[in-house]
Amino acid sequence: MFKINENYLKLPGSYLFSDIGKKVRAFSEANPDKSIIRLGIGDVTLPLAPAVISALHMATDEMAIKGTFKGYAPDLGYEFLRTAIAQNDFRARGVDISIDEIFISDGAKSDSGNIGDIFGLDNKVAVCDPVYPVYLDTNAMSGRTGDYLPELGKWSNVIYMTCTEENNFAPELPKEEPDIIYLCFPNNPTGSTINKAELQKWVDYANKVGAVIIYDAAYEAYISEVDVPHSIYECDGAKTCAIELRSFSKKAGFTGTRLGFTIVPKELESGDVMLNTLWARRQGTKFNGAPYIIQAAGAAVYTEEGKKQTQEQIAYYMKNAQVIREGLAAAGYSVSGGINAPYIWLKTTDNMTSWEFFDYLLKEVNVVGTPGSGFGPSGEGYFRLTAFGTYENTLEAIERIKKL
Amino acid sequence: MFKINENYLKLPGSYLFSDIGKKVRAFSEANPDKSIIRLGIGDVTLPLAPAVISALHMATDEMAIKGTFKGYAPDLGYEFLRTAIAQNDFRARGVDISIDEIFISDGAKSDSGNIGDIFGLDNKVAVCDPVYPVYLDTNAMSGRTGDYLPELGKWSNVIYMTCTEENNFAPELPKEEPDIIYLCFPNNPTGSTINKAELQKWVDYANKVGAVIIYDAAYEAYISEVDVPHSIYECDGAKTCAIELRSFSKKAGFTGTRLGFTIVPKELESGDVMLNTLWARRQGTKFNGAPYIIQAAGAAVYTEEGKKQTQEQIAYYMKNAQVIREGLAAAGYSVSGGINAPYIWLKTTDNMTSWEFFDYLLKEVNVVGTPGSGFGPSGEGYFRLTAFGTYENTLEAIERIKKL
Repeated sequence: MFKINENYLKLPGSYLFSDIGKKVRAFSEANPDKSIIRLGIGDVTLPLAPAVISALHMATDEMAIKGTFKGYAPDLGYEFLRTAIAQNDFRARGVDISIDEIFISDGAKSDSGNIGDIFGLDNKVAVCDPVYPVYLDTNAMSGRTGDYLPELGKWSNVIYMTCTEENNFAPELPKEEPDIIYLCFPNNPTGSTINKAELQKWVDYANKVGAVIIYDAAYEAYISEVDVPHSIYECDGAKTCAIELRSFSKKAGFTGTRLGFTIVPKELESGDVMLNTLWARRQGTKFNGAPYIIQAAGAAVYTEEGKKQTQEQIAYYMKNAQVIREGLAAAGYSVSGGINAPYIWLKTTDNMTSWEFFDYLLKEVNVVGTPGSGFGPSGEGYFRLTAFGTYENTLEAIERIKKL
Repeated sequence: MFKINENYLKLPGSYLFSDIGKKVRAFSEANPDKSIIRLGIGDVTLPLAPAVISALHMATDEMAIKGTFKGYAPDLGYEFLRTAIAQNDFRARGVDISIDEIFISDGAKSDSGNIGDIFGLDNKVAVCDPVYPVYLDTNAMSGRTGDYLPELGKWSNVIYMTCTEENNFAPELPKEEPDIIYLCFPNNPTGSTINKAELQKWVDYANKVGAVIIYDAAYEAYISEVDVPHSIYECDGAKTCAIELRSFSKKAGFTGTRLGFTIVPKELESGDVMLNTLWARRQGTKFNGAPYIIQAAGAAVYTEEGKKQTQEQIAYYMKNAQVIREGLAAAGYSVSGGINAPYIWLKTTDNMTSWEFFDYLLKEVNVVGTPGSGFGPSGEGYFRLTAFGTYENTLEAIERIKKL
């Protein structure tokens, strides 16, 4: 008789964004005359850049002709894309990453879930609280997190690193020693960052205790301040302790186009086993590459035109972020994020819970955001707005909130 | 101190196709004047069908415009694609599969590896021998297969179902009771199939012993005989015991375009837990959908034009298969496959091992195939040729072999 993976049954039933969807649908049906503005989910809205579109068309034409048709892609991804990444994302910032340390994938969500495959089940995981739910859920699915304690909203065998106003939303080194540390900067959901000296402390700590850092840099392209590192490998010694995840979703609007990559440095070892080899084996066995035409589109992001166009998109979103941040601050809200990230994290007023504030905004001004408590217990009393709407809607939403 | 997944260290070091690559490169460098014909690897060579190309261009244009741009795809895949699949692959064959039993993915290799996530580690796995290596390797990675016994070429905790000339390459019901049974028909590597009555026996057996069948139907589009089932759901009771994997790779030449799907029927339960729910949770947490433009291309395969064009591609490859099968038979080889599958499985001559025969063909006639022993110990003494080359090369290769 076959047995299911019982760990799945431990996962809390409801899913944040489906709960939000249900509430919004119910409100919308009851109030068909209201115009709802959605600043909740982190999906982009601008169309793909012209350079990317042009690359997609060209690559499609290649797939139509015998001499240029492409079958199975190389295991790690096409060299033209890995070369562009090594040059533009790393060498241009003084970081030397070789192309066989770069693994092209279908996106950072897959990678952040799948990376757990190469680690034993007896590793103790540390995450920020609040946190992007995928890190916890995927570790729970493989059985690393112990039991879910609904009264705490926490897993019994996870180290939670609290990120609140008190510590400027930057986690402190944990008291209990972790084996695997998930860090995400610029952060989802809080929009916070840490500077290079602060990140160096994490690298030094990980090297000291023999922990590995899974560094999610999906929002790297939104960094505007000079002392904020774009890659963990800007820190000394990171290659012996860190894996970095990158995404084209927010960098170039690829949420529906799907492309990402993971860096596994060859210096990162356990005993004499290179994690690079393990990840190569994992990807070679369970994955068959991102589509050629999508990889060609990814390479277009690194052309002069592509860089200019995607930077314009990011500037558009960051103008929204500024509208939200400054508008809310002017209205007396305590806000953070929105400077190096497309996320603005605000404190609810009048001691409202996150969900009470959600209901309040939806009912009073028909604006949808994301309750902070959905990202973990330390998100309670906070609320996330995203900069991915249109400029006009963002302005209108903030005007409405200011009038409250 | 972090710990790696030690199961990875149990995997045999060398990989079949890289070993072949090394041998071919060495021969090619030593004999630059020889024209080598590759009938080894299972990659397609014909360009994408015009209907598919046209859909890629149209979908790309949609991604360029605000009103039609697509961000994150629906978790299970776009409804337009799932509807086309339900209608064409199932309802047209008298099988009722609902669209929320269809999960669009980036290909059958990912799905055949990832499907293990929803099952406990204490399941006993049964595979055919010879077999597509991904089933075994992914189960080994998660720790289900025991230890690798190099002297046998087998894992200690796996039920092997021998498929040789003696049983017409069709596995027999195992004596030891398995929990998870991998079946692949039309078969890779042997090219064999079983008829509906024979497959019904497997369904009845799985339902009787409470096993789940992972049914890999990646080569379904190559079936030419009427009594060979295209889907396991053509058998009574399959919905309570079987998951089916499908691929666009060989159906429509998508090896470098990446699209597949998995059927998890809602009737498939363990106690009161629906496996459909578990797989939805797995995919919703660890995967973010196939690209919109690729899903649009997939839907084009089901248009009248798309069907006609992809059937022409399959007919082209199957003409190659016929050339190989009949040519080798005429030359006195014992051959099977090639009627409902793009693979031809032949017995080596003069008691050569699979690798001896590989070296012999490479050296004497400069033709590359795949040693059967690479697919498992019962593949020893056999050899796989594929129909995915050009017609001209296929003809030439067979002429060379016939002259031997």
